[in-house]
Amino acid sequence: MPQPAPASEQAFLELIDRHFPNTHRHMPVARGDDCVHLKCPPDMVLSGDLFIQDIHFRNSYFSPADIGWKALAVNISDIAAMGCKPLGFSLGLMVPPVAPDHPGDFWDELFAGMAELAGEYDLPLTGGDLSKAPLLGLNITIWGQPGAQGRILQRRHCWPDDVLLVVGGFGLVRAGLMALEQGGPQAAERYPQAVAAHLRPRPKVAQGLALAARRAVRGSMDLSDGLAQDLPRFLGPALGARLEISVGMLHAETLAWTESQGLDPVPFAYLGGEDYALLACVTPEEADAVARAIPGALRIGTVTSSPGITLNGAPAPGAGFDHFANTQDPA
Amino acid sequence: MPQPAPASEQAFLELIDRHFPNTHRHMPVARGDDCVHLKCPPDMVLSGDLFIQDIHFRNSYFSPADIGWKALAVNISDIAAMGCKPLGFSLGLMVPPVAPDHPGDFWDELFAGMAELAGEYDLPLTGGDLSKAPLLGLNITIWGQPGAQGRILQRRHCWPDDVLLVVGGFGLVRAGLMALEQGGPQAAERYPQAVAAHLRPRPKVAQGLALAARRAVRGSMDLSDGLAQDLPRFLGPALGARLEISVGMLHAETLAWTESQGLDPVPFAYLGGEDYALLACVTPEEADAVARAIPGALRIGTVTSSPGITLNGAPAPGAGFDHFANTQDPA
Repeated sequence: MPQPAPASEQAFLELIDRHFPNTHRHMPVARGDDCVHLKCPPDMVLSGDLFIQDIHFRNSYFSPADIGWKALAVNISDIAAMGCKPLGFSLGLMVPPVAPDHPGDFWDELFAGMAELAGEYDLPLTGGDLSKAPLLGLNITIWGQPGAQGRILQRRHCWPDDVLLVVGGFGLVRAGLMALEQGGPQAAERYPQAVAAHLRPRPKVAQGLALAARRAVRGSMDLSDGLAQDLPRFLGPALGARLEISVGMLHAETLAWTESQGLDPVPFAYLGGEDYALLACVTPEEADAVARAIPGALRIGTVTSSPGITLNGAPAPGAGFDHFANTQDPA
Repeated sequence: MPQPAPASEQAFLELIDRHFPNTHRHMPVARGDDCVHLKCPPDMVLSGDLFIQDIHFRNSYFSPADIGWKALAVNISDIAAMGCKPLGFSLGLMVPPVAPDHPGDFWDELFAGMAELAGEYDLPLTGGDLSKAPLLGLNITIWGQPGAQGRILQRRHCWPDDVLLVVGGFGLVRAGLMALEQGGPQAAERYPQAVAAHLRPRPKVAQGLALAARRAVRGSMDLSDGLAQDLPRFLGPALGARLEISVGMLHAETLAWTESQGLDPVPFAYLGGEDYALLACVTPEEADAVARAIPGALRIGTVTSSPGITLNGAPAPGAGFDHFANTQDPA
């Protein structure tokens, strides 16, 4: 049954207070002023991502708790991408006149999903804004700090011959998205891990901190738009890469999905999208040691001194997913 | 002629780079990573406001430059409300498939309006997110730091007998909004200052810092929803206020508008909305000195030891503007 939104801003704020602790060592004063007061380290990283109905998610197969979880997860992933740990976040919430159709309490479940992930990282929700809007949308801003070594990892710090590592796999989420788009929520029966990876990505914070703790790791980013699109951003315009990717690196459900669709699995996974894995470059001397030390790290190739990307000896397929250009497809 | 949005995310980012400097002492590394790296003071304040088409502004009388200006101005005002100065901001921008109808370059002018105000406060745009969306919307997150004395002003710090000051006037923006809603852009001919105050509010940063520099000022907030709605939030549930507001405190255009509509000017101004003035409470002993020291400060009454608000001896009218409840009316 369609549910109206809580009648007043006050009712929404009380619901938020039930789900998110209102005191925290990082936030010495409770929410409720025009700004929150934060106790900050001297170096911080900050990012923000929009998460909008029918652009980034579909109500037809995202539960409200999935929406709350994923809106925060993609933001935490940006902190992990820098080799940092998250400290807190704020939320701009666009509230449609009637909540998307759902048997339970939509807003309560959305906040519960977000609070579950926030709790895993002990993150205070520091405030933000609520507004009526024609559709559901969330803008989360998140910030964090470097680990003990104080290192912040960036893109465009590769050197020729560096080894490229991916931590967390790639291609599985694309399989999950396509299976959901084709089969709806029942896709979870056949592709449970692919669907879960799409609905509830797990940010790689511990892995990012582990990368930043090793001097041999020169840089990292998170794979949000797929290797094909993100790798050139990581390398910068002057460098290229020689990739060697085997089917053995791919998830069994990625292989099952591509087989069912008659698709070639390696280029499929290379195009990817929303993997929220970490892509890192490591000095060649230390690459084996780093790859062994970080669970889930895959060596996918090496950096070359001139532009252009090859995949298993042939020019790599282009494009990948463009969140911005492809209005129709959620991803 | 309707204009398509820039074709790619890259084109948008280049447009942003043309308008907003990409290095700053607060932002030692240029935009372009998953997060920005910020150099931070130990105490910060942070806030975020949504600014959405047909909820917070209308394309029919907001120029793109006004939209860019005001989206940032309402956020800077939250920093001013705490007696702090802004340091930087990030932007989540929802881009509709076709820009609102406008003779010039819509996006260029929107960023120019935002950059004009950002430049006044030397604020770097640190990054954010771009997404296609069915309508134009902006979510700005902003942060700042206390002035030299290190004080952060809050709500709910009033004592009985404190004097209530408003810095920057109230009621004029409501007149501007109503004149624009009734007459469209031509309302500016008859009510130039009221219309300008609605389209391009000026945050009261210097005034907020001046308030925070005086120990006798116990707290402040900004008037975003009008005195009638914001004053109870400022007082908290245990206190009330005795207000003495004369027509002499009101702007000439507020008086002209209310006269033209047959409205009583004092309750009209008390209901207000989007004044982005500062409301402060000051010890009775120092109230005159503070009011004299801060240009534009008006004494509007005193805090009482029990709840309830009187306006010139009678119970004050209730309500005021609720951004959240009133979907139809932009304000």
